[in-house]
Amino acid sequence: MPGEEEFVVTPYEVRGRIDYDRLRELFGTQALTPELLAKIHRLAGGELHPAIRRGIFYSHRDLGSLLDGYANGRPFFLYSGRGPSGPLHTSHLLHFDLCQWFQRRFGVPMYLQITDDEKFWARSGLSREETVRWGYENLYDILALGFDPKRTHTFFDSRSIAALYPLAIRVARKIPYSTVKAVFGFEPSTNIGLTFYTALQTVPAFWPSWAEGRTIPCLIPCGIDQDPHFRVTRDIAEGLGYPKPALLHSQMVPGLLGEGAMSTSGERADNSLFLNDPPEVVDRKVRHAFTGGRATVEEQRRLGATPEICSVWAQWRMRFAESEEKFEQVTRDCRSGALLCGDCKSEILERIHAFYDQHAIAREKVKDWAESTIVASAPKDL
Amino acid sequence: MPGEEEFVVTPYEVRGRIDYDRLRELFGTQALTPELLAKIHRLAGGELHPAIRRGIFYSHRDLGSLLDGYANGRPFFLYSGRGPSGPLHTSHLLHFDLCQWFQRRFGVPMYLQITDDEKFWARSGLSREETVRWGYENLYDILALGFDPKRTHTFFDSRSIAALYPLAIRVARKIPYSTVKAVFGFEPSTNIGLTFYTALQTVPAFWPSWAEGRTIPCLIPCGIDQDPHFRVTRDIAEGLGYPKPALLHSQMVPGLLGEGAMSTSGERADNSLFLNDPPEVVDRKVRHAFTGGRATVEEQRRLGATPEICSVWAQWRMRFAESEEKFEQVTRDCRSGALLCGDCKSEILERIHAFYDQHAIAREKVKDWAESTIVASAPKDL
Repeated sequence: MPGEEEFVVTPYEVRGRIDYDRLRELFGTQALTPELLAKIHRLAGGELHPAIRRGIFYSHRDLGSLLDGYANGRPFFLYSGRGPSGPLHTSHLLHFDLCQWFQRRFGVPMYLQITDDEKFWARSGLSREETVRWGYENLYDILALGFDPKRTHTFFDSRSIAALYPLAIRVARKIPYSTVKAVFGFEPSTNIGLTFYTALQTVPAFWPSWAEGRTIPCLIPCGIDQDPHFRVTRDIAEGLGYPKPALLHSQMVPGLLGEGAMSTSGERADNSLFLNDPPEVVDRKVRHAFTGGRATVEEQRRLGATPEICSVWAQWRMRFAESEEKFEQVTRDCRSGALLCGDCKSEILERIHAFYDQHAIAREKVKDWAESTIVASAPKDL
Repeated sequence: MPGEEEFVVTPYEVRGRIDYDRLRELFGTQALTPELLAKIHRLAGGELHPAIRRGIFYSHRDLGSLLDGYANGRPFFLYSGRGPSGPLHTSHLLHFDLCQWFQRRFGVPMYLQITDDEKFWARSGLSREETVRWGYENLYDILALGFDPKRTHTFFDSRSIAALYPLAIRVARKIPYSTVKAVFGFEPSTNIGLTFYTALQTVPAFWPSWAEGRTIPCLIPCGIDQDPHFRVTRDIAEGLGYPKPALLHSQMVPGLLGEGAMSTSGERADNSLFLNDPPEVVDRKVRHAFTGGRATVEEQRRLGATPEICSVWAQWRMRFAESEEKFEQVTRDCRSGALLCGDCKSEILERIHAFYDQHAIAREKVKDWAESTIVASAPKDL
């Protein structure tokens, strides 16, 4: 059945079992080569972020030339965003962790966009009060990952619109409706907020160059599903006099139930580990999580398990194996049958709980300065 | 040839000889009846604005109930706007004059929108610097007509976006792309700024009710060509908990060259009397203006002229006959052949020059307080 191999990846829908190499070909992006990994490693002072090393980040656009520019004294900035429709889940940490790592290792600014307007437009069930409340909750969670208060700037759309809009006016004139219709698959019934939105999502990629009146390259780490958004951004960049943003794409983190990506939507809440889940809920979700194990213990001891299809292994791979040695050991022991799923879950649960405890403390501290990162105005108004 | 009788009226195009009664039927609006005129006259303290009395304002939606509410102690507010693509011309004074009259006679607030973003989106030849510059120039001209600084509030879009956007987010979710496509005839090539724009044009109609947390009816005097914009506004009003704005529609003022409406576009500059035209240009344009006169003086003395097709008579009718007696006299003498076109033009030129002189003085004074009318923030952010 050919239908079983079909998959759909758009900024608003991820469906089916994704063939990532095929997706990279479809999207026309570049592979993250060993040479590029070595370059990142060298420029980062001899370190590679685990999610890069473990292949979760696997695709890019123009990362090489951005890094060459950096090596030659031209700093870049990071840009990432979050649509605040509910609590963050652990897979969201992936991109923000990576941004924080780049900020720390490369000493560059981070621009974060909280798209409380877009989520209101995209989800008819959400109220404005909810998107704003989740905007702040998400902002605290993100900043608590270790961002530098002095180098981190937040565009909280509804609160930063005065800063964003002058540039959004220029951007929007460059984007015909036909482009957003083709790229995002919008329907005639799509509201005019959502069809406008890509203009606002484009702005942060150019904002520092515009505001400071000089060329500052942009690096956007994002899920490969967000590539179409930024393809529009890249297409219009040069016509507005700004460099095309470089992209660094990740694969999607599989849900705990073993299908699709983790989702924030309520009905599949058990598919994701939310950062506001209490410990007993985390326990339950991980205990029920889909794994690559066998039907019986005996069989698993004999044949080993399959990490590649396991949602728990995805968590190890993503962030909860803090060292490469640990990650390789878990993977090896899983494959050989030495590590059973129950024991593996106990071990990762310990690590997850430790992270949640430490995160809760960091999150409280962040509330003192989170608001100060919100950009409320621009140095220019044209 | 049926083609000769066709006309097109949309917010972005006015073409052909307009049959106003037919247009009212097509648009489904109400006629301004003698009963309604009497009601306005009474509530205005025994006065009727000349442009209402002379039939230029001829159509409405819900004006009767708005006035009944006013009579029962429920004040309304006025809302009008301007797309700043160039200098104002005398026909633009029509709506702003009327607003100023309503403000003075009814003691109500005026909300003025300067759509510097929309004009940038609608006219690819205009720069942002130009739309902002014209925005201020137009604002000075409008306020100089006699608006009350304490009761007049300006939404200068790019400068007022922080005030407008929270409500625009809610409005935009209510408007599907299919609606703006059908109403405005947008093409796939139309940019996403322009397709979004009707959300921002809708906001002022609800803004006072939203900001003050109570129901305040809105009256929008506008050209009948702008009715489609506000039909969208009316359609979504109740779903958002606001009253439908009442509309008061004018006919289009014919151009000096005798065809189409006055236009700001450069190529037909002689078709309009710009407020920044120097006296000799005003003279030249009026001297060359199309009239309803005859081929020879002798013929005109004998048969009379036709005011209804005369662009100069349109100026008398609109504002330059300050009294009804004068207007009736000019019209009567034109029809009878007693007043020749050259003499009529000399007389109206005197009045136009007197207005320009007085306006230039008022305009300078306005610059002291124009900026203070610009609404930069809202009392609410949700």
